[in-house]
Amino acid sequence: MFITFEGVEGCGKTTIINMIYEKLKSMNFDVIHVREPGGVKISEQIRNIILDKSNTEIDDRCEALLFAASRRQLLVEKIFPALKENKIVICDRFVDSSLAYQGGGKRLGIENVLNINLFATENSLPNLTILFDIDPELGLKRIAKNSEREINRLDLQKIDFYNRVRDAYLYLADTNKDRYQIIDASKSIEEVYSTTLEIILNKLNENK
Amino acid sequence: MFITFEGVEGCGKTTIINMIYEKLKSMNFDVIHVREPGGVKISEQIRNIILDKSNTEIDDRCEALLFAASRRQLLVEKIFPALKENKIVICDRFVDSSLAYQGGGKRLGIENVLNINLFATENSLPNLTILFDIDPELGLKRIAKNSEREINRLDLQKIDFYNRVRDAYLYLADTNKDRYQIIDASKSIEEVYSTTLEIILNKLNENK
Repeated sequence: MFITFEGVEGCGKTTIINMIYEKLKSMNFDVIHVREPGGVKISEQIRNIILDKSNTEIDDRCEALLFAASRRQLLVEKIFPALKENKIVICDRFVDSSLAYQGGGKRLGIENVLNINLFATENSLPNLTILFDIDPELGLKRIAKNSEREINRLDLQKIDFYNRVRDAYLYLADTNKDRYQIIDASKSIEEVYSTTLEIILNKLNENK
Repeated sequence: MFITFEGVEGCGKTTIINMIYEKLKSMNFDVIHVREPGGVKISEQIRNIILDKSNTEIDDRCEALLFAASRRQLLVEKIFPALKENKIVICDRFVDSSLAYQGGGKRLGIENVLNINLFATENSLPNLTILFDIDPELGLKRIAKNSEREINRLDLQKIDFYNRVRDAYLYLADTNKDRYQIIDASKSIEEVYSTTLEIILNKLNENK
């Protein structure tokens, strides 16, 4: 069972994932928690290139290919082996992040970015993708609040970009109903957590 | 005019390219000579990951994505701008190397590797691809001779791989007749050079 979590900045994704991971462990599920680049040496070397602040000249398509390469190595070294041992794999962002951010946000096209990612995953996709949906403005306000500052000009510039990312996510959810579940992430952490847990336990039950 | 040169190890490619480059310059053509990663910072960072001898765990698909990413950045920073200025771009290996080595040699499939490379090049391919065709055994013998040694066990193991690479090149030449030219690279350097030059000058004449 391969479960991925998606959403724009400030959707509360990381907090919820940690809670879900601890809960599943306490219920004696054999579960691993992965986050790209996920402690795989080559994937981290690739991420260093993407995140290097002096690499301002990096092209969007180059970046999308690097994300796919990094993802591939993580799949081969960690995710595929865990799935083979029938573990539950919980992943903070996966292919859909590239589709939403590079495909939608950076306008490379969802289909184009999907193609290079299906090469990376050998056509396999998650069994369940949980989208924490939130208005990007609200998400950015949450982040600003956490760092005890006001929303600034740069944040507002980003809103356009994040609106495109959110639209792409909603499009993906609509066209991949078999694996997508949308959760309203504007609600309280407790509510989001309990809805998420319910969805996952139902899915695990289905697959028994 | 974008011209690429392809062939297995020991085909004499690099020697001929240098001769062609000097000749075209002496004829007052505005020409640049590029070799992947081509002195582009990000492409070199990517190549360092591929060539790092301690990265033995690198997966074939990850490697193919990294080659495509490195190629993309070189295209954007060097090749596209030069073509825009109507320069002749001579490139030592390009997309077809990935198709032959990863697609054929490593059995990832030519179509699969083509797809991620067309994402990298935005569907553009060279105007002319010159394939220096040679029996891989003869190519490896040449290399061994240059380093003053006998063919060894490791060389022989490689022959299988290089035979697949050669077959892929010949398949590509056969299915892309509009841009491919095959040159018998078992002939003398002088003969290979003069045939190559003739092909290129004819193509430049056509495009006047």
